[in-house]
Amino acid sequence: MIEEKGILFVLSGPSGVGKGTVRKALFEKDTALQYSISMTTRAMREGEEEGVDYFYRSKEDFEKMIEDNQLLEHAQYVGNYYGTPRTYVEETLDKGNDVFLEIEVQGALQVKKNFPEGVFIFLSPPSLEELKNRIVSRGTETETLVMNRLKAAKDEIELMDNYDYVVVNDQVDRAVEKVQAIVKSEHCKKERVASQYKKLLEVSN
Amino acid sequence: MIEEKGILFVLSGPSGVGKGTVRKALFEKDTALQYSISMTTRAMREGEEEGVDYFYRSKEDFEKMIEDNQLLEHAQYVGNYYGTPRTYVEETLDKGNDVFLEIEVQGALQVKKNFPEGVFIFLSPPSLEELKNRIVSRGTETETLVMNRLKAAKDEIELMDNYDYVVVNDQVDRAVEKVQAIVKSEHCKKERVASQYKKLLEVSN
Repeated sequence: MIEEKGILFVLSGPSGVGKGTVRKALFEKDTALQYSISMTTRAMREGEEEGVDYFYRSKEDFEKMIEDNQLLEHAQYVGNYYGTPRTYVEETLDKGNDVFLEIEVQGALQVKKNFPEGVFIFLSPPSLEELKNRIVSRGTETETLVMNRLKAAKDEIELMDNYDYVVVNDQVDRAVEKVQAIVKSEHCKKERVASQYKKLLEVSN
Repeated sequence: MIEEKGILFVLSGPSGVGKGTVRKALFEKDTALQYSISMTTRAMREGEEEGVDYFYRSKEDFEKMIEDNQLLEHAQYVGNYYGTPRTYVEETLDKGNDVFLEIEVQGALQVKKNFPEGVFIFLSPPSLEELKNRIVSRGTETETLVMNRLKAAKDEIELMDNYDYVVVNDQVDRAVEKVQAIVKSEHCKKERVASQYKKLLEVSN
């Protein structure tokens, strides 16, 4: 058997593009992927579990990890830290399991810097018109906020060049199929498997 | 709509690995791929059609095309030339259709030299033992020929590094699924689509 390391897949894209929807639909179909568990300084809520929902750490511990470059990315939100612990990702990959991370564009760029061997997938809206409709239809945003979100989306689309793949989210099912194809094909990349196949073919001779 | 050029996919691998079987199974499932039509100097047989089975050319014309670098690859077999015409491939790609070429390793290396933007898939036996079994089970080869074929296969496996992907042909269905995933994911490669998406997203604003 080929003993292959897992691959870190990062799904990102502008706010409102449907990252969460695509990720959920993907995980309903693909049970081999391991969703990346984040670390946070926020308090554990009822029903949550350490190492399942989040890894819970004190602010001091979290800041120490930032210093030690133990996080692939991190951000602050409503006074709490959130981040992706490097060790958890690397241990999961070493076991041969793929890790899947769904994250905002700025976070994805941090991951890319800290873990360039990941596979970066940009989820793109079919058009800015469509993205605007999706943001407006949530009904939670003022006109000014919608405009700010669109401006941010345009800036983020400019960052597409940092990614390996672009998947347009015109239909969730089609987007999921494309992400699944990317996962499968990345495992066939020559760089990942050639040396192992060569070994296998020698041994079996 | 995104107007994308087609992609040339080249499936290759050692003799006996099952290239033809995988290609046939793939074409039963995927009707969007256009099989590359070869050019030959052999006579047209009953029931064959120009531009369907082959493009039929005289020896003189064929040799002129070789000189003019109009063939992505060519070889001689039982006194006749066979080759892949560059113009047919390029015109098909320009129409936005993918071209699929199944070919021996030496031919694939010629295509790679003449058309490096193709996507090269190496179909690998699960083991040399298994490849030997497949060759022997055809029952058409002497012991010496089997040994020569195996020696050639080993040399060809060394050429794996020239390919983009390695697909192990342990089960035809699994191999076909992997090739399909490669086709789908290659169309999501950032290099192929980013500039068009960016344009689309500007226009629609």
